[in-house]
Amino acid sequence: MTVQSTPTAFADRHIGARRQADVDTMLKAIGYDSVDGLVDVAVPDSIRQDTALKLQDALTEVQVLAELRKLAAKNKTAVQMIGQGYYDTVTPPVIRRNILEAPAWYTAYTPYQPEISQGRLEALLNFQTMVQDLTGLPVANASLLDEATAVAEAVLLMRRANKSKTAKDGKTVLDADLLPQTIAIVKGRAEALGFEVEIADLSAGLPDGDINGIVLQQPGVSGRVFDHSGVIADAKERGALVTVAADLLALTLITPPGEQGADIAVGTAQRFGVPLFFGGPHAAYMAVREGMERTLPGRIVGVSKDNAGVPAYRLALQTREQHIRREKATSNICTAQALLAIVASMYAVYHGPEGLKAIAETVHGHARVLAATLQKAGRELVSEAFFDTLTVRVPGKADKVIAAAEARGINLRLIDADTVGVSIDETTTPEILSAVAVAFGAGPVGDFTGFELPADVVRTSDFLQHPVFNTHRSETQLLRYIRKLSDRDLALDRTMIPLGSCTMKLNATAEMEAISWPEFASIHPFAPDHQTAGWRELIEDLEADLTEITGYDQVSIQPNAGSQGELAGLLAIRGYHLSRGDEQRTVCLIPASAHGTNAASAVLAGMKVVVVATAADGTIDHADLAAKIEAHREVLSAIMITYPSTHGVYDADVREVCDAIHAAGGQVYVDGANLNALVGLAQPGKFGGDVSHLNLHKTFCIPHGGGGPGVGPVAAKAHLAPFMPGDANKAAHEPGHGVAISASRYGSAGVLPISWAYVKLMGGQGLTEATKSALLAANYVASRLDEHFPVLYTGEGGLVAHECILDLRELTARTGVTAEDVAKRLIDFGFHAPTLAFPVAGTLMVEPTESEDLAEIDRFIEAMITIRAEIEQVASGDFTVEKSPLRNAPHTAAAVVSSGWDRDYPREQAAFPVHHLKQDKYFPPVGRIDGAAGDRNLVCSCPPLEAFEDNTADFEN
Amino acid sequence: MTVQSTPTAFADRHIGARRQADVDTMLKAIGYDSVDGLVDVAVPDSIRQDTALKLQDALTEVQVLAELRKLAAKNKTAVQMIGQGYYDTVTPPVIRRNILEAPAWYTAYTPYQPEISQGRLEALLNFQTMVQDLTGLPVANASLLDEATAVAEAVLLMRRANKSKTAKDGKTVLDADLLPQTIAIVKGRAEALGFEVEIADLSAGLPDGDINGIVLQQPGVSGRVFDHSGVIADAKERGALVTVAADLLALTLITPPGEQGADIAVGTAQRFGVPLFFGGPHAAYMAVREGMERTLPGRIVGVSKDNAGVPAYRLALQTREQHIRREKATSNICTAQALLAIVASMYAVYHGPEGLKAIAETVHGHARVLAATLQKAGRELVSEAFFDTLTVRVPGKADKVIAAAEARGINLRLIDADTVGVSIDETTTPEILSAVAVAFGAGPVGDFTGFELPADVVRTSDFLQHPVFNTHRSETQLLRYIRKLSDRDLALDRTMIPLGSCTMKLNATAEMEAISWPEFASIHPFAPDHQTAGWRELIEDLEADLTEITGYDQVSIQPNAGSQGELAGLLAIRGYHLSRGDEQRTVCLIPASAHGTNAASAVLAGMKVVVVATAADGTIDHADLAAKIEAHREVLSAIMITYPSTHGVYDADVREVCDAIHAAGGQVYVDGANLNALVGLAQPGKFGGDVSHLNLHKTFCIPHGGGGPGVGPVAAKAHLAPFMPGDANKAAHEPGHGVAISASRYGSAGVLPISWAYVKLMGGQGLTEATKSALLAANYVASRLDEHFPVLYTGEGGLVAHECILDLRELTARTGVTAEDVAKRLIDFGFHAPTLAFPVAGTLMVEPTESEDLAEIDRFIEAMITIRAEIEQVASGDFTVEKSPLRNAPHTAAAVVSSGWDRDYPREQAAFPVHHLKQDKYFPPVGRIDGAAGDRNLVCSCPPLEAFEDNTADFEN
Repeated sequence: MTVQSTPTAFADRHIGARRQADVDTMLKAIGYDSVDGLVDVAVPDSIRQDTALKLQDALTEVQVLAELRKLAAKNKTAVQMIGQGYYDTVTPPVIRRNILEAPAWYTAYTPYQPEISQGRLEALLNFQTMVQDLTGLPVANASLLDEATAVAEAVLLMRRANKSKTAKDGKTVLDADLLPQTIAIVKGRAEALGFEVEIADLSAGLPDGDINGIVLQQPGVSGRVFDHSGVIADAKERGALVTVAADLLALTLITPPGEQGADIAVGTAQRFGVPLFFGGPHAAYMAVREGMERTLPGRIVGVSKDNAGVPAYRLALQTREQHIRREKATSNICTAQALLAIVASMYAVYHGPEGLKAIAETVHGHARVLAATLQKAGRELVSEAFFDTLTVRVPGKADKVIAAAEARGINLRLIDADTVGVSIDETTTPEILSAVAVAFGAGPVGDFTGFELPADVVRTSDFLQHPVFNTHRSETQLLRYIRKLSDRDLALDRTMIPLGSCTMKLNATAEMEAISWPEFASIHPFAPDHQTAGWRELIEDLEADLTEITGYDQVSIQPNAGSQGELAGLLAIRGYHLSRGDEQRTVCLIPASAHGTNAASAVLAGMKVVVVATAADGTIDHADLAAKIEAHREVLSAIMITYPSTHGVYDADVREVCDAIHAAGGQVYVDGANLNALVGLAQPGKFGGDVSHLNLHKTFCIPHGGGGPGVGPVAAKAHLAPFMPGDANKAAHEPGHGVAISASRYGSAGVLPISWAYVKLMGGQGLTEATKSALLAANYVASRLDEHFPVLYTGEGGLVAHECILDLRELTARTGVTAEDVAKRLIDFGFHAPTLAFPVAGTLMVEPTESEDLAEIDRFIEAMITIRAEIEQVASGDFTVEKSPLRNAPHTAAAVVSSGWDRDYPREQAAFPVHHLKQDKYFPPVGRIDGAAGDRNLVCSCPPLEAFEDNTADFEN
Repeated sequence: MTVQSTPTAFADRHIGARRQADVDTMLKAIGYDSVDGLVDVAVPDSIRQDTALKLQDALTEVQVLAELRKLAAKNKTAVQMIGQGYYDTVTPPVIRRNILEAPAWYTAYTPYQPEISQGRLEALLNFQTMVQDLTGLPVANASLLDEATAVAEAVLLMRRANKSKTAKDGKTVLDADLLPQTIAIVKGRAEALGFEVEIADLSAGLPDGDINGIVLQQPGVSGRVFDHSGVIADAKERGALVTVAADLLALTLITPPGEQGADIAVGTAQRFGVPLFFGGPHAAYMAVREGMERTLPGRIVGVSKDNAGVPAYRLALQTREQHIRREKATSNICTAQALLAIVASMYAVYHGPEGLKAIAETVHGHARVLAATLQKAGRELVSEAFFDTLTVRVPGKADKVIAAAEARGINLRLIDADTVGVSIDETTTPEILSAVAVAFGAGPVGDFTGFELPADVVRTSDFLQHPVFNTHRSETQLLRYIRKLSDRDLALDRTMIPLGSCTMKLNATAEMEAISWPEFASIHPFAPDHQTAGWRELIEDLEADLTEITGYDQVSIQPNAGSQGELAGLLAIRGYHLSRGDEQRTVCLIPASAHGTNAASAVLAGMKVVVVATAADGTIDHADLAAKIEAHREVLSAIMITYPSTHGVYDADVREVCDAIHAAGGQVYVDGANLNALVGLAQPGKFGGDVSHLNLHKTFCIPHGGGGPGVGPVAAKAHLAPFMPGDANKAAHEPGHGVAISASRYGSAGVLPISWAYVKLMGGQGLTEATKSALLAANYVASRLDEHFPVLYTGEGGLVAHECILDLRELTARTGVTAEDVAKRLIDFGFHAPTLAFPVAGTLMVEPTESEDLAEIDRFIEAMITIRAEIEQVASGDFTVEKSPLRNAPHTAAAVVSSGWDRDYPREQAAFPVHHLKQDKYFPPVGRIDGAAGDRNLVCSCPPLEAFEDNTADFEN
């Protein structure tokens, strides 16, 4: 049946400019009659897809939530005692609701604009301080992707940091008691880069030969707690570096790696309040000893000062990041797990040192009690020294024990036919312990039997003594601390974030809700398949939808960041060439305009990067491309292109580029960063790509989380399918599967319901309309702003794709006002800046996305035009650039309220450059931050409170 | 078994000052060695309970959430088509997450301090505008408790507003097609007040006799849509007033009551996005014609201006409210349903006029289709004209149809053995319609058959034309609007709210989470009992716990506000006297210091209020009490006392007062407003009370929601149990049950999981410690501030109970600085003011509650001492009071940034009176609001945008 009218479709909620009058206004400014007309000109015919996307019809929010509840019901929750790197934990409800479920936190961008990011920077600095204190090492980063890849990063760091003549080119030795997924990941990386990895029982001493570095685990996957000091001393004696993968909760009781001489500590912060999430996202960590901080991969928060001398946080040492170092990069880590790191840090803030220690003691006490009960019943333990995990010998009966436990609602770890693992966590109760004991054929557990950690590993040092970990003990206090930090930041819940190449679009609530349902959030990644049917159905469905959207033949959602998707794609290409005997094909062509991560990923895939020049119009320089192909024809592995290009333009000749590469025996990697300009209009799998990665945290609505989580699926044509990511937890890779990319089979599974829901809510038609609307919005901005800030590159008909580059170089040359000044001045208008200096220095790249409405876009345009007028004031001498509101932006409340105001412009111009700001003004908590000072004097842990107090005098001026 | 340490108990998260060092600091300031020592002195021996509370041991948050999931699983969700005033609806996820589940909204207090309440005031003004537009009447209030009590309020309003000599004392006539619960509630109120109510079929014309007013319903409970214009004209002809209870969704298609000549429209906004909640809380509404606005009950938001001429919202006409008018009050309505009214208003903001109309058309179209199918199959409809509800004759087969529908997961309305009702709502799908048709023995439904609303009721006028209802169409826009409004306000997530008598304590997330689970939120109040076992178990459990805590014999949670609990208690007393033949016992003694609502409730219970004087020390004047008892001994019904008294002191002689009343044949009503000073220490049911009401939104952690919902359970001794609230929906009241107080049996059931969880999380010991901590905090504030602002009343040992009154009268007399000035100046420090001018004019009453930590309390004390110094600056002539930062508080950003600053104090003093405000400053969106101007020129709907633009010039100065 039909009815006359239907309630508003979700696409009309997702897309900002849906009123015809608004669309008409925008079209008129651009000079077109219809959106389709504009799209027909902007998108080259040669790549346009000729059929509509074959996806399920759009569902309503109610329907999607009902479908998600059905899928959730197909997962079976259980008491998760499998361990192996993943432990159940209690997410304090106040943290779940006010961070994981709060738009102010999850819609924030990576804190590259530190003045509007002080809240999440503080939370991330707390994370670093927590890691430093617990590991006993002085510098930690603000999260890596997962424990296994963090170990891989540590191995690479040891390989470049070891300067010993004899050892530096030696093998990497992994202790046999590492997590199996860690061993698989390290081996996969080593294979591409061509260094030797040996697995050995290091408790029996070091193997012979030159050793670059060793990796130990505390406790081991067997649960064993072992005094590493001997083997660490031996390793150092022989010139090897030492990494310890350590459990943060255990470190509240056990001697930290730093105190035993380790150079690097890595691990996961998952059990600090982050749900199991079927394997991710979780925040991994890395900490290093003094002297290694400048080669530490990942993002580091540091302490600097603002222009009034107030302590201020910022991302430190950015110049050593992969997107700057490009082909000289030593890591391709980009997106972190910011949101999860923040959750973990707040867990530590809430519990404090005593609370964490109490949890660890309870966990250990419970493990002790269970061990005693099992031993009394004649069961043998593999290790008598343990923290939370028991490995129990049950010859021939492991399946039976596992089944008996599952019958009681408990998942244990099946190690082999004779061995079962049990991991205790903070949710374990005495009743659960008794049920486990009964499953082992023992009786109920007895009373607490005391602590028995080996004396040589008992921690004696203090940790988390900073006030932030000793203040917020009541829920009210924590709630207010969380609110205070989030209020310091600008996120999508307050302003558009027009960041070119970042696609900061709506993260709809209906998309977000399911991720915290227990039936999704509490599933262990190694739970038996019959408990995870709902998860796998959702994932297969999403992979199928992404396959249809991209025009490829297969998608794997395993890579848990865009950078990992790139690596997975390049490793697939590598595997393909190897399978054909083309070992020599190792050259990867990358246009000069590419995102730096491309080159970094190519390096990690063992490729040699050759740069292709950019033509004056922003496209690939065809002559140079032809020359490079010719020069490297026999060794050509691949080209990496971004489409539309990072210049925000649809190059009309992309098919020719692809054909030329293919003709030379190369493969085409299409970076999917700009897929938001393609969905429903063109398919990379159809116009020449062999493989792509997508960013679900851009095009498919996973929120940026203040710098992660991300999901970077890899999509490929059939010939590359056999080389798609394998499962790190299968002893042998499954047939037809390639190198494992992430620790768990489905990577950051926990956030996939977001993208699944987005696709279902939009349907093929809605997704296509979203793409068209993104083009409309970008071209509207370009049309309106071009006369004020010239648009650098355009394509057919003078149109851009989904973003536009505003060129400030002439203005800068003429007035001294930089693109950075404009970016900072936008903060005074309540805006997050566009992308600064990428892909072209001296420019701003604006991507409004389809989710912004006309009023908000006009507010942005108004701000930019107002700023343009201020630049003219510099030009006309009203004030110098040094004394301009541009250079002195952003303005804090303290600055504009100061009685000592002596600027060459009035306070009102500083604070309220447009009138409507008066009532709902955002004041940044700090002024312009001195980045260089922070890098010169690197401080990466919470500063003492006196740092703020000492500043009082300055601050009050 | 036991383990050495356990994770932090919830009580340690709920109570702010749990560190021994903090407790010691506070004790030292008060001059005590231990909390127990302080409590022993403060609380009179004569009332102390001698045994610990017998409640279940405290559970952890994990355990409580698990128990709630178990209870939820005992409720059965179904497609709810019962109707009868409650309809399923879609709460847009963006509204659910960002209002219903957002601390910034739900922890806010009633907007009595308008400068820090502009956000929720705007949302409530939107609600009023929405109601006005839809009903066609010019003035609406910002919500009443439920539809049935709203009709009762309308009936009382008609009785006092009708000035016709003949009609004014006539009967009230209710149309027979009203909701049955409405009829029951009106009859209950009428009985106490002694006026006649007649039920008649008004479609057949008016009955004979003098008629004060009539009440019609559109659509009727039968679903019938009827043109009321004839009967309304007849009623007016005969001097009667007219109330129409109308469905807001239907009014998008049907002629509004105001256009048909009605004086009053009432109803519920539930189906505008507010979950069914097993009967409540939902926002009822009332709108009136011009000329009646000043007698409209409930809260009204009005538009005024601030001290810079900027339009600003405030609660209007407060002087006509019950707490001011006391025994002259005509309504006891106090707490509204603010949070739910805000949800409903946002639903209208999100959908706009077209969207609402589309929903209504879909609903009506679906009803049409079902009707045609049923009629084709030979089923007969009671009314051929309907909007969304069909009443179907199925002689002898109603049970069978109901069962057949339930087997398909659908609840229909069993009217009688021959009649079944079906209500369509926005969640109804064609599949559901077909299942319903099949349950009736008809085939699947056919196609849409067109609209057939009777031509004489089709709405032709526009509605919701204000921009606010035509702007926020995308989710991003609505999210930002919601965030913008909440940022304008101060709630518990940013600051303590030290409001005496309001107990603004932690509303913990673990307490809040369950209320939006579908198994609680989506249950219809009239669902069959076998579908609601979980709900009823939870409610019975909570009632039992409250019985134990108060020392009474029975508790009913039905009253959905404190005022309603008072009325229920007084009606129980009335019933008791009547049952003993003591009809003459109608005098209610009320101390002069009582909350004004006490007197208002007594009036509504048909009692005569006699005021008892207060002695100089704040206690009841015993001589006056004895005299009043003597004077009214034969007609004495009751005394209403508050304990501890509204002066914040434990009167030592409360038992003697109770004894004296009892000796005279009267009953003792103990107002439970201050129960937070008693839980675990003393029980009103044991020290002399016969009946009490409690405020679950004070002592038991239901958040204030910006002015509701509240829950006001009534607790009574066994002899009053037969007179406790009955069920308005039972044709005959159940044996042993009294007058129904709320429309649904369990009142605001939907929020009861909050209080249930609080009690379970705390256990008896935790609750008792909370009470002691509340005493500690209040006495610490009193001790620290007494030298700056004398504490007006103290009890034994110079101690106060859980709050203290700071006396400013001497300072005001000396300097002109008023308590209001101090209240407004506190906003500049980021604080919500304490209670102003209650119970004593010229004072501030401070209640810190147990949830505030020492640092926050000290921050408040620092603010008060700083303000005290500013008062001395007035005294010493540094500035006049008119030019002081006190009188000019609060200071907006626009004010302190103005280049034209010409105050006698520096900007920094205005904005940053203490240093630590600089980085995280809250600026109110408006300055001091002129209340009187707003009342003189009453504007109660959204002002045109020009109102804000016109002001630009002023504003920029």
